[in-house]
Formats: sequence, C-alpha cells, structure tokens
Amino acid sequence: MTAGRSDQSTGFPPVIENAAAKGRAVIVCEHASNHIPSAWGDLGLTDAQRHAHIAWDPGALGLARGLARHLDAVLIHAPVSRLVYDCNRAPDMAGAMPARSEIHDIPGNAALSPEDRAARTAAVYLPFHDGLHAVLMGRIALGLHPALITIHSFTPVYFGQPRAVEFGVIHDADDRLPRAILAEAHARTALRAELNEPYSAKDDVTHTLRLHATPYGLPNAMLEVRNDLIATPEAEAAMAATLAPVLAAAMATLTPEPA
Amino acid sequence: MTAGRSDQSTGFPPVIENAAAKGRAVIVCEHASNHIPSAWGDLGLTDAQRHAHIAWDPGALGLARGLARHLDAVLIHAPVSRLVYDCNRAPDMAGAMPARSEIHDIPGNAALSPEDRAARTAAVYLPFHDGLHAVLMGRIALGLHPALITIHSFTPVYFGQPRAVEFGVIHDADDRLPRAILAEAHARTALRAELNEPYSAKDDVTHTLRLHATPYGLPNAMLEVRNDLIATPEAEAAMAATLAPVLAAAMATLTPEPA
Repeated sequence: MTAGRSDQSTGFPPVIENAAAKGRAVIVCEHASNHIPSAWGDLGLTDAQRHAHIAWDPGALGLARGLARHLDAVLIHAPVSRLVYDCNRAPDMAGAMPARSEIHDIPGNAALSPEDRAARTAAVYLPFHDGLHAVLMGRIALGLHPALITIHSFTPVYFGQPRAVEFGVIHDADDRLPRAILAEAHARTALRAELNEPYSAKDDVTHTLRLHATPYGLPNAMLEVRNDLIATPEAEAAMAATLAPVLAAAMATLTPEPA
Repeated sequence: MTAGRSDQSTGFPPVIENAAAKGRAVIVCEHASNHIPSAWGDLGLTDAQRHAHIAWDPGALGLARGLARHLDAVLIHAPVSRLVYDCNRAPDMAGAMPARSEIHDIPGNAALSPEDRAARTAAVYLPFHDGLHAVLMGRIALGLHPALITIHSFTPVYFGQPRAVEFGVIHDADDRLPRAILAEAHARTALRAELNEPYSAKDDVTHTLRLHATPYGLPNAMLEVRNDLIATPEAEAAMAATLAPVLAAAMATLTPEPA
C-alpha cells in the first residue's frame, strides 16, 4: 500500500482559527473531521461507517468553535479522520491507525507495513503537532499563559452499553484545571458531569496533553461531551453557551503563572 | 531590536547526521555550535566570550559525532549558539535567551521585547524541536525503539569553584537508562562519574528529555562531560571510544519495549 506518499511532502497541517485571539484558552480538536484524503481511498468502510463516531467526534468541532468564540480563544483542529491517523495517539500505539474501532473492522488499516505507518505519521501526525506546538510556543514566548483544552465527543452507546455521563472532564498528571472545571460544571449546569469518564488517562487518551502541556507546566484538560447532546448546530451552540462560563470561571481560579 | 526577522521564514533547522543509522541511540547535541547568525550581530560579546562555554558546550559535538559513529546512531545538533536561543530551555524560561550567563552579561539579550523572544523561538527553537520530533517519530513508527541521549559538556571552573566530577549522568522522571549508564561507567572506566552532577533536573536542564522522551516512554539520559577532558579532536575521539561501550552496555540492559 503506497497510499499517502503523494501527500507526504506537504502533509495535512491543522486548521487554525482565531489565531490572534486574546483569551487564555488554546482549544484543540483532534477528531474534528471525518475526511479521508483521496490517497487513502475509503479505507474499505461503508458510507455509514465513515460518518459514525469511529471516524471522528461528531459535534466536537461545532462545540469547539462556539467555545472559541465565547472565550476569544484560538482553535486548532485536525483536517483528517482519526481512522487515517488519530492525532491524539503516539505512532507506536495501536489506536493511532486502528485496525478495529469499537465493533468495526477498518479494512484499510488491517495490514499496514512499518513504512505505511511512517508515511501516515509524517503526513498527518507531525504537521498537526508541529502546528499546535508553534501556536503554544508563540503564546508562551509572548508572555501569555495558555491553558490547553481539548474537545471531544463520545457515543451514547458503546459496545451495546448506554452511557449515563453527559460531560466528562479528564485529567493527566496535573488535575488543577479539570477539578476546577468539574466544580464549576456542578455549580452552574444541570449536566451529569464526572471526572475521568467515560475514559481516563489510563486509557491512553491524554497524549496531546502529555505532549504539549506537561513539559511546559501549562494547565490542561480534556473534555468529553456525549454526542447526542450536540447533534445539531443549534445544540452545539447551546452547549457552547452552557460550557463557556464554566471554563472561564475555572480558568479564573488558576494563578497566572502555572505552579 | 528587529534582529532575526529575516531568518524567520526558514529558520535554523537542526543538522541531522547518519539519518539512516540502525542503532537504537538517538544522539542530540543542543549546544553544539557557538555560531551567531548575522541577524543577531555579536550580541555585544567579545571574541573570547563568543568562544567560551557560555556560548556553547566545547567538545560536545566532537564527542557526539564519535559516539554516533561507534554506536551507528543518528545525530541531531543545533546550528546556533545557545546565547541566541538555548534549545534545551522552554521559551518562557530565563535561560532560553539569557541576559546573563555565569559571570558574563549578554548585552544583546538585555532588553528583549516579547516580540523578540517570539521571533527567536520561531527561528531557532521550533525548527530544532520539529526536526528532532520528526526523527524520533519516524523511528517509532517504523517499530524501532529509540533511546534519547543528549550530550553536553561543562566548564571545569564555575563561579570560581573547581569541579571534581568528570562525567555526569542526569535523569529526569525515568532513571532506568541513567542508572545503567552510571553503573557501566563505574565498571568500565576510570572516570569520576556521578549521578545528577554537576546539574540535575531541578535546575531545569532536562527540557529536551521531558519534551521528546517522557511523552513516549522512551528511555533517556543527559550526559555531561567536563570540557577539559575533550579539549582537542584527539581527546574527543578518545572519550567517545571510552563512553561508547558504556552506552552500548547500558542500552543492552533495557527491555526492547520500554515499560
């Protein structure tokens, strides 16, 4: 399989919106898109599979855009489906180019050679993280104090099991911002909000936080919203209006200089 | 001060040698060069200062090249003086563009604006780390198991105090490889070798390790050699011949898959 080779020279850098935003939050959406570039065909998937949660986080980009607007935040999102390369996974993790996702086989990922993996890493993973790194370092060099917040959505039914949690707040090594967000969510919203649900750092879902926030001591959090709550543009906007004050209040509890 | 602007579009990517090397070690030398690109003039320094340890790690590049040859390792080194930008420091650390180093004022760094700091970060820091990241991720994606080893030298007299240690092995969060290197150094050489001397992670000298090794679980170590022991090409070669078996033996104690 030589797919991806033709894209390698330029690759797929992230989309950056509101680059000049003045707010503290840097909002990231690794699973914003279900786009499969032509070099990778359709990965052997049906149209329904290519629109399902396995290919992207439905609603996450709309929610992230609404939050970026409310919070005057820069937004960085990936332009390629997580099934080509999941930018929230390191290149040696099975989930980076998964051969199976939930109950679905991904035929186009079934027999990847090491060279295929390296080509996708070069075409998708590296440009995404180089772009995010540049945004964060530019802000740090200017004396700003960015807080990294990643926006995800999760399916209401997973492996046949319904999920009751509506808003998950996930932390890695530094739990300051996540605990503040959870407290504000409980105080300000009616959402069923829980810490480290439906995933936690033990599930290897905090790669972006570990790569970009931890080495610099930046406050950081991963947010998960159940996707049936952000299934239309109106619902995305309503959730953004609900969560923006939660995030603003939580960030206000942080000292300007991260400890 | 507008220095650096003209270089920003391309910046100063690292020099990569032995890119196709098959050995496990990825050798990094952040302080390989005392070169000050013309955009930054002479930073107000004398010729003697520009050749002193404050501008670079004398002998480190020669040692690193010798180690890379012995170990069949890829070598990545920075082409710009640490006084323009110290690639082993985050952009918000004072030492990234120091106004003072040991007993020397750096006039060209005395009154940097936030924009100056951002320009140097974009021109030197980002290309260096993007380049190193690409080397490491390519190797990880290919199923190799890189070990990150950074090579430094230190001055025998610092703030007027002589230093007895000859070979320092510094660890960050993961001390497996450093402790193995120290044990092999004691067993195989007559060097006065010590752990976390003359610096330790508390001195914020392990930025490269935190940025590139920790998030991926890669074994890693920072090595410091007293620069009077590598003051000539012959001495660099001799030290490389002494330390290469130490590093090879230490890497052999690691499991292939980092824990």
